[in-house]
Order: sequence, then structure tokens, then C-alpha cells
Amino acid sequence: MSRKPVQIMETVLRDGHQSLAATRMRLTDMIPVLEQLDNMGYFALEAWGGATFDSCLRFLGEDPWERLRTLKSHLKKTPISMLLRGQNILGYNHYADDVVTAFVKKMVENGIGVIRVFDALNDVRNLEVAMKAAKESGAHVQGVCVYTISPYHTVESYIKLAHQLVERGADSICIKDMSGLLRPYIAHDLVKALKADPKVGVPIQLHTHYTSGMGSMTYLKAIEAGVDVIDCALSPFALGTSQPCTETMIAALEGTEYDTGLNRHALKESVLHFANVKKSLAADFNLKTSFDVDTNVLDFQIPGGMLSNLFNQLKEQGIEDKYQDLLEEMPRVRAELGYPPLVTPTSQIIGSMATFNVMLGERYKMVPREIKDLARGKYGKTPMPVDESVREKIIGNEPIIDYRPADDIAPQMDLLTKQLAEKGYPNASIEDILSYALFPEVALKFFEKNR
Amino acid sequence: MSRKPVQIMETVLRDGHQSLAATRMRLTDMIPVLEQLDNMGYFALEAWGGATFDSCLRFLGEDPWERLRTLKSHLKKTPISMLLRGQNILGYNHYADDVVTAFVKKMVENGIGVIRVFDALNDVRNLEVAMKAAKESGAHVQGVCVYTISPYHTVESYIKLAHQLVERGADSICIKDMSGLLRPYIAHDLVKALKADPKVGVPIQLHTHYTSGMGSMTYLKAIEAGVDVIDCALSPFALGTSQPCTETMIAALEGTEYDTGLNRHALKESVLHFANVKKSLAADFNLKTSFDVDTNVLDFQIPGGMLSNLFNQLKEQGIEDKYQDLLEEMPRVRAELGYPPLVTPTSQIIGSMATFNVMLGERYKMVPREIKDLARGKYGKTPMPVDESVREKIIGNEPIIDYRPADDIAPQMDLLTKQLAEKGYPNASIEDILSYALFPEVALKFFEKNR
Ligand SMILES: [Co+2]
Ligand SMILES: [Co+2]
Repeated sequence: MSRKPVQIMETVLRDGHQSLAATRMRLTDMIPVLEQLDNMGYFALEAWGGATFDSCLRFLGEDPWERLRTLKSHLKKTPISMLLRGQNILGYNHYADDVVTAFVKKMVENGIGVIRVFDALNDVRNLEVAMKAAKESGAHVQGVCVYTISPYHTVESYIKLAHQLVERGADSICIKDMSGLLRPYIAHDLVKALKADPKVGVPIQLHTHYTSGMGSMTYLKAIEAGVDVIDCALSPFALGTSQPCTETMIAALEGTEYDTGLNRHALKESVLHFANVKKSLAADFNLKTSFDVDTNVLDFQIPGGMLSNLFNQLKEQGIEDKYQDLLEEMPRVRAELGYPPLVTPTSQIIGSMATFNVMLGERYKMVPREIKDLARGKYGKTPMPVDESVREKIIGNEPIIDYRPADDIAPQMDLLTKQLAEKGYPNASIEDILSYALFPEVALKFFEKNR
Repeated sequence: MSRKPVQIMETVLRDGHQSLAATRMRLTDMIPVLEQLDNMGYFALEAWGGATFDSCLRFLGEDPWERLRTLKSHLKKTPISMLLRGQNILGYNHYADDVVTAFVKKMVENGIGVIRVFDALNDVRNLEVAMKAAKESGAHVQGVCVYTISPYHTVESYIKLAHQLVERGADSICIKDMSGLLRPYIAHDLVKALKADPKVGVPIQLHTHYTSGMGSMTYLKAIEAGVDVIDCALSPFALGTSQPCTETMIAALEGTEYDTGLNRHALKESVLHFANVKKSLAADFNLKTSFDVDTNVLDFQIPGGMLSNLFNQLKEQGIEDKYQDLLEEMPRVRAELGYPPLVTPTSQIIGSMATFNVMLGERYKMVPREIKDLARGKYGKTPMPVDESVREKIIGNEPIIDYRPADDIAPQMDLLTKQLAEKGYPNASIEDILSYALFPEVALKFFEKNR
């Protein structure tokens, strides 16, 4: 019983409802149980970032910064964790360094304690500015290994990535498995290797989704291999496409050498509360909140929902008989483009490219801009090089960006401040300028009603 | 890689829909995919017994015997498994030996290959007649250890029970965890002990429910301890209060020394099919088919649904403030009654007794007949003796049945045959007589329409 307790990060306030309720949980749905959650002894409460920022402004009429301050005022003991897409902040394009830096500093000032920062390609250059700002702000900086399956993504490649993250100041490492691809015994080997490596030397946290149904088994084997923190959601927002269940993981480990020490019974009211919240979100926003597990995700690394969308696209064109071709084309396209992890938006991009290839009967005849940008190195370095002949076909002899992509982006804060002043907000706070930077139209609409 | 593959028993045709769709799956919902399931290489397909027999006659207008014959005609390679409540057959009272014997012989004649036989108290005397008939019929006889948590139910007590089952001819042992109480590391130790005991020496099968969310982890640790067969349901009828998911367990073990060797991709059509079946059952019978995991079951060993029923009973009496007393009273009553496993109907019986005790303010003032019968030994031997003073209070000096309870029951088949003749069915088949024996009113109504 010498092992230190496994810790839990609770995701019900962010990934739980992002996964099962279209990110529609409102601040008022959270407040009644914040004190109870704060008293639990969680490693952290994930409650900000990801899609919540956009959803606040776009759908809920909430100021995400104000939400953060309110959360912080109730959470006096437990750090608030957030998810950051590196140089993309919370979007899908790179921002200027001064915007990234200002965003990180402002969110820490407003209450964030743990910053989980990832890049869709695992290109650490896209994390550097955010990590530096986070370190300077005094937050806990968690560097991410985005988990995926490919010939490139071996245990060794993840060890190397972890070294790069630690060199850049990561206080801990998160293995982020967005689609539930990480199998139990693979997780065991990966965590074991990371824990054994003296150059890593920081706590390891594991994040998975229950999509394929393996999530709890994957945690269990990772725990046996020494993982320090696991991400879980309270039962009403667990399983399906969300995280493994908090109460279940606590219970499974009770009385073992891995005991979390958390008191499952102290969660009873919160569980009842969120069961009602789920019902009300489902009713108010007309949401489907329960999903069967689906192991197809293991074969194509993209969730079943996207597969049926692609099938329907083919059907609309009257070529649904090419569906099998499409299923085979997708991994081929991914390989030729250097095995990017399939996370939003790469999964959609690869899916579209494969669909074009199959529909037109000629490969890379029509090529979406995003594919060209990927080949140009505009998103960063792909895990393996883009196939030479494919690159030539889609961008010819165009120069390849072999430096940090954001080096090309001039500072933006002054310009944004000026723009916002011209739109009628000369005294906009830095927070409002940042909201405008990230989601200009949505933020302006929000300001019209609320400023 | 020397270990032999883990085998899977598929439960979608019985426990899957009994757990998630009120046992309403119709034969026509099964037929389209029987051939595909038959070709999978499952250890067995559980498709009969449990509540299906009653449901066929009562709700679906189907003859359960005819269903069995039709299933058998499609399932040429894979044995059909069924669940038998020992001397209770498929009900909650003991039947005469000649009825039990005739039932077992007829079901094997009509197509059953594997008989899983259990007694709610783990009293093997209640299994003897059924096991003997099953052995004589040539079926695979699986003896059950009903899993529960109590000071009596140690690994040693289960080893002892397994010995008794093997002595009576069990071809394999099933650990049956009805409510998802079995924790992963406990399962590991239990399976390990059973596998290591030379006097057990038969394959070990594990049956659990996902109620508390631990099911897949429990299987994984049991597999590491050497379990031979696990019970799983296809994804549309998995998780919630049903079994762990077939495709998930196959996937989690792929490429490991425990690989099932089953081809997950060959299940694709069946999965799509059953997803539609679930939708149609939910619509046709107005069913709720999805349930959040609920770890409360671990504390009271009864599912959350029954807890809320008890709470509502108290509320109707205006004494909902006694709910906490009730929660504490239930384990006390269970202890005093000798720690019976909480399975239908013992869970309901204990629940009612505890409710009376709390409502009336005096313990064992009003006592349901079933509690008296339990104390009388009418259901069999309780794991531990009934508390002396409680027994005296509820049945005074009445004699205790210390022999096999069914020894008191005279043969019934001739009488039943005569009764049925008088009701207008002089040429009733043995199968119809047995249907009438088990569910007299329901069977008669069915015969009126169908004979
Ligand atoms: Co996530
Ligand atoms: Co069951």
C-alpha cells in the first residue's frame, strides 16, 4: 500500500457536457454544486476552454470570462483546468504570438490554475509561446501527447515528444486520446515507459473517451502502470462519447493499493443534480444525450457519426456503392499526408479529401485548401513527411514552411483594439478584445446585447 | 501466447433485452441475424429461460417452445444457453421434482445445449434434481455461484460451493453477479482461487451487469486470472443494466495473449440490426432503454430503481425523513436473516421487511409471509443461520425445514395433465402442460387464442 493515491480530474463541467450535451451546460447549471465539488479533493476541475468559450458567446448569452470569474469565486480549493489548442488558442487557425500570450495571461488572472495545451500535429513549436506565457503566469502547465495510431506513433515517438514538452517547462504530461483508441494493454506499456524514463520525470495524466467502450479498462491498466491522474466525469455525463465515470473508478479502486481516497458518497447530491441538468439540457436544446459504444472508431479513428455523414454524401451523389472504397481511401490519404492524428479538424479534412478522391475517380484532382495548407506545412510539421508525389501533385513546387508557422504572423492586439474601437467599443477590456479576436462576429453580436 | 483464447457467450438474445428492453425482443427481431451470430464462434448464445418464457406467453403472443425450436433450426453450430432457477424452474416457488425433470428434458429435446442453473440462496439441494435431469439429457450443465457481498461470502465459501456443484456433475462453474457488485480485483482473486483449486477443475465463466460501471474492468481482471468464458452483449443491448459490450471486449483483447479470435467486423450487420430492434422495442412498448451507471448499488446491493420505489413508499406515508433509517435497516435485516444474496425475489422481500420495521417503529411487528418462509427454511438453507431472537419473534417455535424443501412436494405432472384436460385441452403436449405448470393463467389465455 505504498503507492500514492490515484488522482482524478473531474470533467463534468467541460468535456462531459461538450461530449454529451453539445457544450450547452450553463453557469447556472453548475453553481448549485460547485461547493460540493470543490470539497471532494479532485486534482482539478476541468471547467473552461475547449468549445465552452464559443458556446457561451454563441448559444448561451454568457460572457466566458465572467463565467470563469464566477467559477473561481466558488472554487476556493480546487484548481480550475482548461484545454488550450496551443497557437490556435480555442480555434482552428494560428493566432499571433501577442494574442496567445495575452489570452494565457488573462485566463490565469481570471482564475485558471491548470492549462492543458496541445497541438493537433504534436508539433511542439506550436506550443512554445503558450507554454512560455503559462509558465510566466504561474499556472500548472500540462503538455499533451495527442494519442493516435500509425506506424510513426510508437512508444518511442511519444517518449521523444514528452522530452520536448518537459524541456519546454511542462509540469505534467497528458496522454490525450480523443476518440477512445487507446487499448488497455497499449496504455499500460505507454504509461510504464513514460514513468520509467528519467528524462520525463513529471506526473502522467490520462484522458480518454468511452466511444469504443474501453475507457475504464484503459484507465485500470494505466493505473497499474503508474499513471498519476485520470480524467473522469460524474455518471450523468459519463460514458457514451464522454469520459469514464468518476464514481465507478473510485469504487473499482476502493480498498486496493490504488485507492483514490475520494469519498464517493459525498458526490450523491451532485450526481442527482447533474442527472436533472442533463434532462433539462436535452429538453431545452433538443439533444440526444446517450450513445451506444461503437468499436468502428478503432478501424477508421473517426467516430461513427462522421462515417454516416460520409456515407450520406456518397448516397446523395448516387454512388453509395463506393462506400467501401472510401473506407479504404481514408487511411491511404492519411498515410500520404504524413499520418496526422485525427482530431478536429484533421479528421474532417482527411475525410473530405478521401471523398473527393473516390467521387471523382481520380485521386487529388480536386483538393481542399486545408489539404494544401497541410502539405505546405502551414499547420506545422506532420509526423512523417508528406508523400513526395502527392505533394507535387497538389502544391507543385511551392515552398514548404519549415519554421514555426506563427513566425509569419504579425502582432494583432493593437489592430484588434483599433478595430473594436471603430465598431463602437473604444474602452473594450483586454478580455473583450480577446473574445473578439477569437470569434469576431459572435463576439460583436454578444457585445451588442450586453455592453 | 500459450494461453487458450478467452471465449464469449453472447447474451443479446436473452439477458441483453431482459435488462434493457423488459424482455420484449420478439423472435422476428432475432431471425434475420441468427445465421451471422451462429457463424461467429461464440461459446454459446444465451437465448432462452430467465424471463423470456413468461414474456413470450404474456406479452408477445409467442409459444416459448416454438421459439426455441425455431432458434435451434437456425443455430446449427452454436449451442443455445438458457438460465434456470433450479427447483423454481423459471418462477419464484419450488415445483415438484417430476415437473422440474420433465421441463429440463423437454427443453433439451427442443434445442437447449447449455443449462445454467442457480439457486437464489446457493443451496445446492435446490439444484440437484435439475442437474441430474440435465446430465441425463446430455446437455452442458453449468452450476452457478450467485455472487454477493457479506461476511459469509468469502473466497473460501465460493470454493466450497464450487466443490458441491462439481460433485453434482457441473461441467463448468458460472460466477453470477446480478447487480454489478463484483469489483475488478476481487474478481481476480476469486477466479484465481477457483482456477487454482484442483477439486474444481472445470471451466469458469463470469456473468456480470454494468449497473455500477465496473463490468468491463471486472472481466479484464478475471481474464488475467484465467477465466474461460465471459458473458457479453452486442453494443445496442450492452452497458447500462446489461452486460459489458461484446465488440469492446473483443477489441480490448485483440493482439494480446487473451485474444478471443473472434472477428469483430463480422458483427457489423448484427449490430446495425439490433440498434434498429432497440429503437422499435422502445417505441412499440414505450420503454426506457438507456440508464446511467449507478454505484449506489454497491452500498445496498439493490439497484437504484428499487431504492427510489422504497423512498416513494415512505413519502406516501409522509415519513420520507425515515429514508436514512431505512437505508441502515436493510443491511441489518439482511444480516439477521442469514445474509441471503439479494436477487429477485429476496431483494424485494428484504426491502419490504425493512420498510415495515421503519414505518411501524417496531421491528418485526408486521412480517410478510415470505420472510416467515425464509426463516422456516422453506426456500432452503440461508448462508448463515437466521438470528435466534428474530426467528423466535417471527415464527415462534415452529419447526424448521432442515431437509430439501421440495421433498415436501408431491408429484404434479399427472394432476396438471388432468386439470388441463378438464379445461378443454385433453391432448395437450408435455410442453403445453409445462407452460401451464409454470404460468397457469397466462398459459390458458394463450391457449384460448392459439390452440
Ligand atoms: Co476530450
Ligand atoms: Co444477468
